[in-house]
Amino acid sequence: MSAIKSIRSIAPLLDRILVQRIKAESKTAGGIFLPESAVKELNEAKVLAVGPGGLDKEGKRIKPSVQPGDKVLIPQFGGSPIKIGEEEYSLFRDYELLAKINE
Amino acid sequence: MSAIKSIRSIAPLLDRILVQRIKAESKTAGGIFLPESAVKELNEAKVLAVGPGGLDKEGKRIKPSVQPGDKVLIPQFGGSPIKIGEEEYSLFRDYELLAKINE
Amino acid sequence: MSAIKSIRSIAPLLDRILVQRIKAESKTAGGIFLPESAVKELNEAKVLAVGPGGLDKEGKRIKPSVQPGDKVLIPQFGGSPIKIGEEEYSLFRDYELLAKINE
Amino acid sequence: MSAIKSIRSIAPLLDRILVQRIKAESKTAGGIFLPESAVKELNEAKVLAVGPGGLDKEGKRIKPSVQPGDKVLIPQFGGSPIKIGEEEYSLFRDYELLAKINE
Amino acid sequence: MSAIKSIRSIAPLLDRILVQRIKAESKTAGGIFLPESAVKELNEAKVLAVGPGGLDKEGKRIKPSVQPGDKVLIPQFGGSPIKIGEEEYSLFRDYELLAKINE
Amino acid sequence: MSAIKSIRSIAPLLDRILVQRIKAESKTAGGIFLPESAVKELNEAKVLAVGPGGLDKEGKRIKPSVQPGDKVLIPQFGGSPIKIGEEEYSLFRDYELLAKINE
Amino acid sequence: MSAIKSIRSIAPLLDRILVQRIKAESKTAGGIFLPESAVKELNEAKVLAVGPGGLDKEGKRIKPSVQPGDKVLIPQFGGSPIKIGEEEYSLFRDYELLAKINE
Repeated sequence: MSAIKSIRSIAPLLDRILVQRIKAESKTAGGIFLPESAVKELNEAKVLAVGPGGLDKEGKRIKPSVQPGDKVLIPQFGGSPIKIGEEEYSLFRDYELLAKINE
Repeated sequence: MSAIKSIRSIAPLLDRILVQRIKAESKTAGGIFLPESAVKELNEAKVLAVGPGGLDKEGKRIKPSVQPGDKVLIPQFGGSPIKIGEEEYSLFRDYELLAKINE
Repeated sequence: MSAIKSIRSIAPLLDRILVQRIKAESKTAGGIFLPESAVKELNEAKVLAVGPGGLDKEGKRIKPSVQPGDKVLIPQFGGSPIKIGEEEYSLFRDYELLAKINE
Repeated sequence: MSAIKSIRSIAPLLDRILVQRIKAESKTAGGIFLPESAVKELNEAKVLAVGPGGLDKEGKRIKPSVQPGDKVLIPQFGGSPIKIGEEEYSLFRDYELLAKINE
Repeated sequence: MSAIKSIRSIAPLLDRILVQRIKAESKTAGGIFLPESAVKELNEAKVLAVGPGGLDKEGKRIKPSVQPGDKVLIPQFGGSPIKIGEEEYSLFRDYELLAKINE
Repeated sequence: MSAIKSIRSIAPLLDRILVQRIKAESKTAGGIFLPESAVKELNEAKVLAVGPGGLDKEGKRIKPSVQPGDKVLIPQFGGSPIKIGEEEYSLFRDYELLAKINE
Repeated sequence: MSAIKSIRSIAPLLDRILVQRIKAESKTAGGIFLPESAVKELNEAKVLAVGPGGLDKEGKRIKPSVQPGDKVLIPQFGGSPIKIGEEEYSLFRDYELLAKINE
């Protein structure tokens, strides 16, 4: 049986960053539901948890570039997928994240 | 004849981590046994033993990120399989483990 | 729903550089619109935003070679594409940019 | 003519480890000989000799992780095979060995 | 519209070297024009501009091996092509250049 | 015309080791000549000459692991072949040699 | 038009070594000319010019292992070919040369 009670119990290791992709609109502005094939995947994600950071050559932690709550651009490929119930998440290495999205 | 009396006799070398995958439910909540093809493999594993750690450039050990008893997310591919009797185990490098699962 | 309100909200991470390709003329000098297949893609781009710089071995930031507003030659392949509305942008690593175009 | 008088004359170089795979049972508990195809190869091996260790960046030897007499888990692939008479041996790099088997 | 007014406006980045291939004779010594297929490409080029140099591990610039005006042997493959009007140029990394041609 | 008067005129560069494979018996113990296809190639070789050693990061020579006259195990693949007259030799990098054969 | 007046005008860059392959005999000892297919290519070459040496991590030049006039064994593959008139030359990196041939 899965040991994962909630996504909050996932603590990424080293420089890994746990993110969840931001869902694209499945309704038009006018409220019409779009068929699934018309919903484009976004490469935007919300940071849920960050690891303690990778180790540099002197054994010191390299501070991750992002924090939980940040919105980020993720690369089109890569990342390790995790599925909990019906929700999908991904783990990226810190250096794989492309950009922060400021609001 | 196998020299392995028990999984407890396996002492991983360097930064290797001995884990056993957590088994997925093979029964439904109502107690019905599921056919094997319906039992989804989980990427969750329990840490059984950790190596002394890899060596950094000055020859000092790099402390592993996990401890025996920890639950971890393992990558979908990779790891070295070990089979003892009917049980299957895997050895991963410390940096291959994705996340710790807190309870 | 996309979290990106405007391209100005994209803050590249590490040594990444956000650029937009300079559009080739789609009209001749005489004002005749060219069919799309006749419009050659240019490898020239305008720098819109630069990351804080990658980290060297001592953990210090490496200053990016370009600044917002610079015009640059980009390689023919590579870069991570971003699409916002109808506009296309790319993220390159600083060391992938070929040359600055002085005016 | 082979210069190797006995396996004891092999002195591995650098971080190489000379091992011999532990043979699987070819008889059942009741004494019945098993056909060869039923004898499963084990990934367990006995360490026969260890090299002086590889060199780190300062030119100092890195102490091997195992000693002659140790039993080890070897990876499923890799290693350099040696055949002396009818016996087969393998040479692994120290960091390729997976685990020590304690008794 | 291209931002490049002239090849002189290209300032290579890091250790990149802007060169133009030296054109092979398209006439014989006697003044007869050769058909294009008989004109062999030369791997000789003239250096037009040099970048400030790549960065070593201490963050200092590594001085390029060539200067504008130098003639050089370039490798048969590689380099990033640039086209300005009808003229073709290439950008090479400093360490890719094979030799200087003294006169 | 070959500049090589004798194999003794070959002075390996850097960490290269000149070896000659030890020939397998082409006669049985009883003096019967074996057909060529029955003569198994041995991975044993005699060291004929050693280079001055490769350079470490401080520019100091790394002492080779073997000396002329040593017998060694060579890997099944790799090495640069040299042919002088009818004799065949090989050049290996020092770290490619597997083991010394003590007598 | 080629800028190369003579092979003596080629000054190799960094750790590159300009060599010319030593031609195999095209006559038998008795003076009979051999058909071209019977002339075996030799992997022996004469060093014509050496670069100033590559740069180590402190930016100091690494002295090349050979000097103009040296005879060397070159690897069977690799090297950058140069053709001047009817003569063929090659550029190798210093570490690619296999051995010096002493006379």
